[in-house]
Amino acid sequence: MRISGKKYRTIWQCEDNPSVIKIIDQRLLPHEFCIIDLLNYKDSIDAISDMAVRGAPLIGGTAAWGMYLAALEMKEKNLKKIFLENAAKEISESRPTAVNLVWAINKVMEKVKGLEDNETIIKAIESEAKDICDEDVENCRKIGLHGLEIIKEIASQKRENEVNILTHCNAGWLATIDNGTATAPIYAARDAGIDVHIWVDETRPRNQGASLTSWELMHEEIPHTLIVDNAGGHLMQHGEIDLCIVGSDRTTRAGDVCNKIGTYLKALAAKDNDIPFYVALPDSTIDWSIRDGLKEIPIEERDELEVSEIRGISDGEVRSVKIINDETPCSNYAFDVTPRKYISGLITPRGVCKANEEEISKLYPEY
Amino acid sequence: MRISGKKYRTIWQCEDNPSVIKIIDQRLLPHEFCIIDLLNYKDSIDAISDMAVRGAPLIGGTAAWGMYLAALEMKEKNLKKIFLENAAKEISESRPTAVNLVWAINKVMEKVKGLEDNETIIKAIESEAKDICDEDVENCRKIGLHGLEIIKEIASQKRENEVNILTHCNAGWLATIDNGTATAPIYAARDAGIDVHIWVDETRPRNQGASLTSWELMHEEIPHTLIVDNAGGHLMQHGEIDLCIVGSDRTTRAGDVCNKIGTYLKALAAKDNDIPFYVALPDSTIDWSIRDGLKEIPIEERDELEVSEIRGISDGEVRSVKIINDETPCSNYAFDVTPRKYISGLITPRGVCKANEEEISKLYPEY
Repeated sequence: MRISGKKYRTIWQCEDNPSVIKIIDQRLLPHEFCIIDLLNYKDSIDAISDMAVRGAPLIGGTAAWGMYLAALEMKEKNLKKIFLENAAKEISESRPTAVNLVWAINKVMEKVKGLEDNETIIKAIESEAKDICDEDVENCRKIGLHGLEIIKEIASQKRENEVNILTHCNAGWLATIDNGTATAPIYAARDAGIDVHIWVDETRPRNQGASLTSWELMHEEIPHTLIVDNAGGHLMQHGEIDLCIVGSDRTTRAGDVCNKIGTYLKALAAKDNDIPFYVALPDSTIDWSIRDGLKEIPIEERDELEVSEIRGISDGEVRSVKIINDETPCSNYAFDVTPRKYISGLITPRGVCKANEEEISKLYPEY
Repeated sequence: MRISGKKYRTIWQCEDNPSVIKIIDQRLLPHEFCIIDLLNYKDSIDAISDMAVRGAPLIGGTAAWGMYLAALEMKEKNLKKIFLENAAKEISESRPTAVNLVWAINKVMEKVKGLEDNETIIKAIESEAKDICDEDVENCRKIGLHGLEIIKEIASQKRENEVNILTHCNAGWLATIDNGTATAPIYAARDAGIDVHIWVDETRPRNQGASLTSWELMHEEIPHTLIVDNAGGHLMQHGEIDLCIVGSDRTTRAGDVCNKIGTYLKALAAKDNDIPFYVALPDSTIDWSIRDGLKEIPIEERDELEVSEIRGISDGEVRSVKIINDETPCSNYAFDVTPRKYISGLITPRGVCKANEEEISKLYPEY
C-alpha cells in the first residue's frame, strides 16, 4: 500500500542487512511516520506488547520474524536449541488474545523440528517467515476479491450515491502485511470503480480508527469520515450505512468473533437495522480448538492509562492529555466477543460463508 | 450536592447582587472549578450554546434565568416588551434538541402575559425562574425515591457484592439544578445504605462521563469506574452490570428517548443481555407534541472539532490535542434516539412507568 505515493509493507527484511527487520512504529501515527529496526527477538516482543505493531496478521508476521531474530542470536552466541524454544514461549506470551501469535510460532517451530545445525535453522525460519508474510498478503488479496462481490451486490441495488461502509478499529493494511482484511474489499471496490465512502469508528481507547484507518484511507485517497464510537447506531437508524466490515482477532470454529472492544455493539445495531455485518479474516485467526467465544476466549485487560490519557498533537508536539480527575479508576478490556448470530457472514480467503460451524467446515474441511 | 464538602447548586442568584446569576463553568471540569457570572441574557445564550451549562434541566433553568436577565436589561435600557419576546426567541434557539429550553421559556412568557410594568415583569420572571429551579430539585428528589425502589429490588436479589449500574453521559446533578436525574436513584441508594458501584461511560465526543459524572461521583464518594463507550456491551455479556440508568434530553409521548449519542447502543446491549434499562427524566423533557422519536426529533450536529480534538490536562496545563491527520473530515451528531421497545421503564417524578403512551398517559392524564 501507499504512503505519500510510495509502496510499503508493514514489516520487511532490511535490504542492506538481512539480519535487521523493519517495522512502522504505529504508535506514532498519524502524527509521525517512523520506521523501527528490530535487532533481536526481545525487540520483537517489545514491538508486539507495546503495540508498535498490532493487528492479528501483523502480530503473526512479527512473531515469525522474531523467531528468525532469535535464531540469529542463538547462532551468534553459540547457544543450544533450548534458547529458541524459550524464545518461542516468550514471544507467544507477548499478547494474550491474538491466536495468530501462537499459530505463527507453531508454524515456525514445526519447520525446525529435527534440525540441529544453526545455519540450517536460520534459513528454515527465514524462509517460513517470508512465507507467512507472503501468504498473508495473498490471503488479504483473496479476502478483497470475495468481499468485493458483497459490495458489488449492494452497489447494484443503490441507484445513486456511494456505498457507505462502517468499519471499527484498524483491520486495514497496517494490521496485516499489506491490503488489510476489513479494508481489502474496500480497496478492491475502489479498484473496480465502485464509489465507496467509509465511516471510521475512532475506536477508543487506543483510537486505531482515528490514528490508523483514517490515515491509511487518506493516503489511499478513499473518501471517509471519522466518527466517535457512539455514533454508528444513529447512522444505521438513518440509512447512512449500507454495510459493516470489521476484522477479527480470534474466530471460533463455530463462528463467534473476538475483535476490538465495541465491535459487539455495532453488530447489535446492524442487526437491529437490518444492515449486513461481515467479518473479514485470514484462516490464521480461526481457533479450531474452541466453539463458544464468550466462554472460552480470555479477554486481555490493558493498562488503565490507555483510558485515562489520550495521545494527540498540540502546537506541533505529540503529547498525552489526561481526561479525568486523579481519583477515578478506569477499566480497560481490549476486546469483546460478537456472537455468531449477529454476523451476516465471514469473508475468508477461501470465500464467504455463514458464521456457523457447518458452513465454516465446508470451506475448511481439513480441520 | 457537594464539591470538596461544600454544598452547591449548578445555577444560583448571587447573594450580594441579585441581578447577577452564577453558574459553574462545566467546560473546565474536572481540571478547574470555576464559577461564571451571567450579567445579561446574551451571556445565558453563550453559556447554553457553548455548553458552559448542559443537561436538559439545567438548560431549562439557565433559559429561565436568562429571561430574568433580559427583563432587567429591558428595564435598564427602557425598552419595550418586544425586547423580551425577541430574547425569548433567541434563547429558545440556543440549542436545538433540548425540549426544556422551549418549555422553560414558555413557562416564563406565560407568567408575563398581560403584564406591562417592567418592575412587575422582573418580579414575575424572577419568581418563575426560582420556581423552575426549585421544582427541578424536587423532581430530581422524587426521581431518586422512585428509582431507589428499582435498585432495592435488585439489591435484594443479589446475596453479595454491590449493585453495578451503568450510566452514559452526565445526567447527574451537574445536568440538573441538584441531585441529577439518572444519578438521583444512585444517591438515594447510597443514602439508604445500599452498596452501589457505577460504570461511567466516558461519552465521546465531549467526554461528559469522564469529565463530569466521574468528578461528581468522586466528590460524593460513590465507588465508580470509568470505561470507554465501547466497553459496556462486554461488561453486560459478563454479568458485570445489573442495571442501566440514563437521562433524557427529549422524550416523546409514546416513550421514545432522545439522549446523548451512544445511548441507543447501550440499550441494545442491555436488551440482548436481559439487563434492565431505565431512563430517568423530569416531566419537562416530555415533548407531548410528538410520538415517533426517530422521525420527529431533529438531531443536533455539532462542530467537528469536538471529534477531532480532545481536551485534557498535560503538565498541569489544560489543552486540546488533535487525534487525526489534517485531511480526514469528522461527523458529530450529538444525540440518538432509543426506541421505546428497548426501554424497561421511565423513572419520572410521578413514579415509574413502562415506556409506552398508555402508561405514560396514566401518570400524566392532564396531557
